[in-house]
Amino acid sequence: MKAPNKIAHIGIAVRQLDAVLPFYTEQLGLTLLGMEEVASEQVKVAFLEIGESRIELLEPLSPQSPIATFIEKRGEGIHHIALDVDDVEERLANLKENGVPLINDKPKDGAHHARIGFLHPKAANGVLYELCQYPKEGESGHE
Amino acid sequence: MKAPNKIAHIGIAVRQLDAVLPFYTEQLGLTLLGMEEVASEQVKVAFLEIGESRIELLEPLSPQSPIATFIEKRGEGIHHIALDVDDVEERLANLKENGVPLINDKPKDGAHHARIGFLHPKAANGVLYELCQYPKEGESGHE
Repeated sequence: MKAPNKIAHIGIAVRQLDAVLPFYTEQLGLTLLGMEEVASEQVKVAFLEIGESRIELLEPLSPQSPIATFIEKRGEGIHHIALDVDDVEERLANLKENGVPLINDKPKDGAHHARIGFLHPKAANGVLYELCQYPKEGESGHE
Repeated sequence: MKAPNKIAHIGIAVRQLDAVLPFYTEQLGLTLLGMEEVASEQVKVAFLEIGESRIELLEPLSPQSPIATFIEKRGEGIHHIALDVDDVEERLANLKENGVPLINDKPKDGAHHARIGFLHPKAANGVLYELCQYPKEGESGHE
């Protein structure tokens, strides 16, 4: 299995973006790339650039959001790690075949035109991993 | 404040390296760069390469290890995020002056000849951040 390309992002659950953004931009000196509401997940996301990766701050928009449930159970903190891959569908199929517990065994649409899939946190002793495949510029999809 | 260069590593607390390493190497396809015991922190660390960053799996070597305490309280999972910076001493001084809660207000020695300092998790709503400055090849220290 080829290594994933990089950390795509680290997802961090926060109660209120406004309350934490100044720490990230003014104290750490990170650049805020943008904000976006993802209706399907009921979250508002702030994207911060860090090297080749991003930190994504996730604020729940309703008590039904998975991020609201996470904060209720565990408090604010790191929610998941997303790895950038070229072959999300094949990887999920492969992991499934190997008996690795998955949340998504087929890719679904994510933000920024990515195709994504979550592994089950049982797979990695409590760490929630996401695999993300982004469309490549000038490529039609497959290599 | 200049942005940090990149995510240096993500530190993940695990009960037993042997129990989780096969997931990282065989299922995710990451390369194990090495293992090291850090006596001062009472941990054994496995370093995995991911793009310009690393995932560091941290196994406690004694019940006195901060990682053992973390696992007892929170279970296995993500422990901290380390950011690569060029100016750890100035940054810690600056953060202190700005009233940001710190664990280390002066840098201390870390693994791989780094100078490191931890912010207090209160600073970032529950996320533990570390700042790491690595010696640069062919440089005597300051720019």
